[in-house]
This record gives sequence, C-alpha cells and structure tokens, in this order.
Amino acid sequence: MKYNRYTLVVLATIILSSFSVDAQKKQAIVIQDQGSFAVGGSVVTAPGTFDPIKHGAFNPANQSSEGQTLHGDHAYVFYQIPDKARKLPLVMWHGYGQFSKTWETTPDGREGYQNIFLRQRFPVYLIDQPRRGRAARGTVGGTIAAAPEDQLWFGIFRLGVGNEFYPGVQFSKDPEALNQYFRQMTPNIGPIDIEVNTKAVSALFDKIGEGILVTHSHSGGQGWMTAVKNKNIKAIVSYEPASNFLFPEGQVPETITYAGGSLRAVGVPMADFMKLTKIPIVIYYGDNIPSQPVENPGQEQWRAALTMAKRWAETVNKLGGDVTVVHLPEIGIKGNTHFPFSDLNNVEIAGLMSNWLKDKGLDK
Amino acid sequence: MKYNRYTLVVLATIILSSFSVDAQKKQAIVIQDQGSFAVGGSVVTAPGTFDPIKHGAFNPANQSSEGQTLHGDHAYVFYQIPDKARKLPLVMWHGYGQFSKTWETTPDGREGYQNIFLRQRFPVYLIDQPRRGRAARGTVGGTIAAAPEDQLWFGIFRLGVGNEFYPGVQFSKDPEALNQYFRQMTPNIGPIDIEVNTKAVSALFDKIGEGILVTHSHSGGQGWMTAVKNKNIKAIVSYEPASNFLFPEGQVPETITYAGGSLRAVGVPMADFMKLTKIPIVIYYGDNIPSQPVENPGQEQWRAALTMAKRWAETVNKLGGDVTVVHLPEIGIKGNTHFPFSDLNNVEIAGLMSNWLKDKGLDK
Repeated sequence: MKYNRYTLVVLATIILSSFSVDAQKKQAIVIQDQGSFAVGGSVVTAPGTFDPIKHGAFNPANQSSEGQTLHGDHAYVFYQIPDKARKLPLVMWHGYGQFSKTWETTPDGREGYQNIFLRQRFPVYLIDQPRRGRAARGTVGGTIAAAPEDQLWFGIFRLGVGNEFYPGVQFSKDPEALNQYFRQMTPNIGPIDIEVNTKAVSALFDKIGEGILVTHSHSGGQGWMTAVKNKNIKAIVSYEPASNFLFPEGQVPETITYAGGSLRAVGVPMADFMKLTKIPIVIYYGDNIPSQPVENPGQEQWRAALTMAKRWAETVNKLGGDVTVVHLPEIGIKGNTHFPFSDLNNVEIAGLMSNWLKDKGLDK
Repeated sequence: MKYNRYTLVVLATIILSSFSVDAQKKQAIVIQDQGSFAVGGSVVTAPGTFDPIKHGAFNPANQSSEGQTLHGDHAYVFYQIPDKARKLPLVMWHGYGQFSKTWETTPDGREGYQNIFLRQRFPVYLIDQPRRGRAARGTVGGTIAAAPEDQLWFGIFRLGVGNEFYPGVQFSKDPEALNQYFRQMTPNIGPIDIEVNTKAVSALFDKIGEGILVTHSHSGGQGWMTAVKNKNIKAIVSYEPASNFLFPEGQVPETITYAGGSLRAVGVPMADFMKLTKIPIVIYYGDNIPSQPVENPGQEQWRAALTMAKRWAETVNKLGGDVTVVHLPEIGIKGNTHFPFSDLNNVEIAGLMSNWLKDKGLDK
C-alpha cells in the first residue's frame, strides 16, 4: 500500500484528533510567570521605643510591643501568567468562610477554575482577603471559636439538608470529597471589615491594571463596592452574590425577610451607582433555590438573594447597564450548589463564563 | 559580503547564545499537573442532633453546634509537577510565624525556592502546617493578639538589630521589600501542637510516597520527628533548624542557656533515633551568628542552635548517619539571614542544595 503526501497529512490529522480528548485533559500548562505578594493593608505603630536587648528574645513572658510596628490588613495574592496570555486577567475572590482554595482543585480532586482558565490562556490571580487564609495578619485581634458547624454550611451551601444530599446534586458522593469540602472552610482571623477588604482589592487593581473580577457569595457585594472604587475592574462575573446589593439612594428596595433572616439592600450616591452601569456583569445562581417561601433557612437565604439580584439587574439595566442574571435551572442546568465553579459539572459552568467573556469582547 | 551555510549556523549560534541569560530568566515553567488538598487532621462531633430548620440559618445569635461536626487540624498542600519531572519531590515546610509564602516570591520580588526548583524539574509541594495560613481550621480555638512585634522578628530573623540592618546583609534596602517581609508573618490559629503537625505531614508522605523534606527553623525539629514517623522521607534539607534536636535517651546533651532563653535537646528511644542515621541530611546556617555569648538575644538563639546542630550531627554520624552542617560564612558566603533561601543570594544558596542533592543521588 502506498501513501501520497496528502494521505499522510490526513492520516496524521485523524490520529492526532483521536488523542485530543485525552491529550487535552493531560496537556501541560505553560507558565510564563508565577508568584505571590501582599497588597494593601496598613501599619500600626505602638508608642515607645523598642529595646532589642531587653525585649529581643522570643519569650511570651517578657514580650513588649513598645516602639514596634505591625503590618496587617493586606490581601494576599498568588498569580500565574500563562504562555500567550490574553490581555485581561481573571481576579478570583472567595466567599464567606472560604479562601483561595475555592478556585483550586475541587473537593473531589478535579481541576477548578484556576487550572481551567489558565488552560484558556487567562492570567489568573487568586485572592485571600484580609484576615483570611494567607492574609491572616490583621491589625485587630479576635477569638477563634472552633465550633462544630459543618452541617450548618452543608445546608447554606445547598449540598442538602442536615446530612442528606439533595437528589441529583452536582457533588460527589465519595466521602473523601465531603472531607475535603469541610476542610476548605476556614475561620475569620479578626472581624470582617468590608472597607478594609475592598480597599485591599482595589489596591490590587491599582497594581495590576485592568482585569475581570470573579466573585463568589460574600465577595459578590464587596465586588460591586470595589468596582465603584476602581475603574480598572472592566467586568464582573459573580457566582451567587449573597448581600450588599447597591442601589441609588432613594431607590433602595424593601428589605426581604425570610425564614432565618433578612436581606437589606444598600443605598449609595447616584454617581457611584452609575459606575456599575459602565461594565458588563453576569451573575449565576444554582439549583434548589425555591421561588416561594419554605421553612428551610439554608434555601431561604438564596431565594432572597436571587430575588434581590433580579431587582438589582433591572435597576442597573434601566440606567444603561449590562447585567445578566442566569438562574442555571432555567437554562436546563440542574443540581448546582452554592459553588457552581467546583461542582461536578464545573467544566460546563466554566463554558458559560467563557462564552459570556467572548460575547463581551473580554477575551482578547 | 557572502555567508556560506556553516557561517550562518555559527552566526545563529552566537546570536542565540547572546540571548541566553535573558531567555533563561524568562523561560516558561511547564507544569504537567498542579493542585491543592488538605491532608491529615481529625474530626470533632458535638453531642446531640442537628436541627436544620431551627439552626440552619447563619445567625450568630441562634447558632448551635448540637450534632454538628468540625473538620480541622489538617495540613494544606499546594503542589506543582513540572514536565519531565525528577523522581523525588521536594516537600517544603515553613517555620514559626510563617506559611508557604516562605518558599514563593522573595520579599524583593525575585523567584523563591518554589520556582527555582520547578525550573530544575523537581515536583514541589508547599505545606501550610495545621492551624497556620490556609490550614487555619483547627479543632481547638484560640485568641489572636495582633500585637506589634515586627522589630522582634527583624532581630530574631537576623536582618539586623532594632531597625538597623547588619552591614552587608543579604536583604534588599528597598522599603517595599521590608513591607512584604513583615506581611509574610502570620499568626498561630490556635495553639501549636507538634504531634498534630508531624502527624499531618506524615500523612502527606503516606499520600505522595517517597520525597525529600525541606525545612526551616521551627519545622527543622518537627522534620526530624516526622522522619522518625515516616520512611517515605528519603532525605532532609534543613535551613537554620531552631529546636527539638532528637538524641538517644541517655545521650541527651546539656541544655544550652543564652541571653534570653535556653535550648533543650529531646531524648527519644534508640530505635527511633537510629532512623535518622539512615537518610542523608544537610543543615545550613547563615551569617551574624556569634561563636561566643553576646548580649543580643536575636543572635544568641542561633549561637545555641548552631552549637546544638553540630553536636547533633556528631551524634548521628557516630552511629552511622550522614549529616552535614554548613555554616555559610565558613565557606565564604556572607550576609545571610535566617532565610537563606529567599535572601539576595538565594540562587547561590539553591545551587549548594542542588549540588548536595546530586552528590547524594537524590536528583534522578
């Protein structure tokens, strides 16, 4: 049998194509640069003079802060710039009780948004907000309770109720996945201070320039606030924003009450609000969010949030903005928890985000 | 002017060579796999039954731990496997008041051991020990003081005394470098528990198999203890080990007292001690460690540690071990702080480690 050059090219193409699924999965990530830094924060100086001879030993019984400084309240950032990088980096900001791990390996050991978007040639910056994870050094002390509360978060994060998973939930039933999931909860090291947090993340955008902010839950509202502070935020992708929806003063909607709590909107001057109409924003919510009141507070909180998010989108869009709210079950994607980006179908969820970025011309 | 083919090849070689220094600096790191996980730890379960309706809302005034679990006391690991990886990974464990940042970007913004050794094709695992950084979730609570103590650590970490750098110290005088350095200090989240820590790191070696442990300061002594627990630790590189030197019971040397404290050796059964004679170990200490007592506690602690390390090496080697203690100024390398791996000359310091790994056949 003889092959001409054309035949060989076709054959080679077929052979390469047959390997492409597996090859894609195991393809290397080519990193042009990676590293970490602290950004933002403040410095406290205790009065007096430090005496390095008298107080220079590590000895808790003979410690003195006199004349010493404390550097704290910064955010901590780990970044990776892939080869042939796209222009706008993705800056990923975790939610309440979480840290940068949110975006790394999923609880069941698959790739999270960090790797998925590096493979799509986006620079990826992972934030630990002030007083959390690797940014634990705050200027204000605190007490860590170490109270058992895994099942509380199992409910609020909508894996299920008590210890029972929702039917069809996009979460692995391997016990090790739940073990890893519970271990990615992490305490607040000192009080949460939204002004401290948004200042630090704004300082990050001052340092790196223009980028796309990706938020989750508690960082959703903080994300709107940071975008008001910093023009370098060119777009926001927000997963299940939980609180701090900003409305123009005088147009703040009624507080939404629900089983277990209430969700209050926040008024800001019109000039600040208008900044949110200048950038494209997409918001995603997962499954098991009821449309009518139920008795389970773990679901109720998200009924309130989704209701508020829709009102917010209407208000921003009426004033010329570009906010899209995607309730995943409404487009046929079922079973997602409060963490769609690490759920079993996270490649599909990432695909939605990629398409949105492309539609908005943010993937150049 | 005419060129034949040979001339062109020579010219091209010369041109490529002239770019090689810059190219080397900016060469991409090819990552076959990267990710993160929690390892080790324990689970606490509060008595009673969790009621998801009554206690399922995030509401500090109505919280209850009844029937809930707490997953804590794990270590947290971020790993990267480079292309064409060498067989034995480097597992890097930070010291007191520090976390995985120790091994990442240096305070002055250059590459740290993470990138340096990835470029040498070693798999690199960075640990946050239990109750520190990304492994903050412990099973025991605690109080964070947020006390100013930067100058205490400036002294103990041997950058200088008070706020004055030592002459010739291998640390950038750019104020931003010191800012970053102080911000890589991080509090203990709950009490330090050496048994918890060494169990978690041993669990890591159970998971990943054979590897080389790289320790710093407080993890030095914990490293010996973990090597006693786990045969998968095939070698140890220890920077400025500070405490917990293990000796055979009955051969424990005298406690070394110094200005500001004392250093006590630890006795272990001979069978445990002998495990430390089966693996190659190298220890490095930097500069500004006096050979005779001085009044500055920031230096004295290290005079004690270096003295103890030399005694320890003698004891291990007498029983068939292979411990090398390198006091850097004695081989002509001056100005190093307590963090030689991130000092201005860290490429040279890494070179010593690479050569040692090669000499011991650990870089296959």
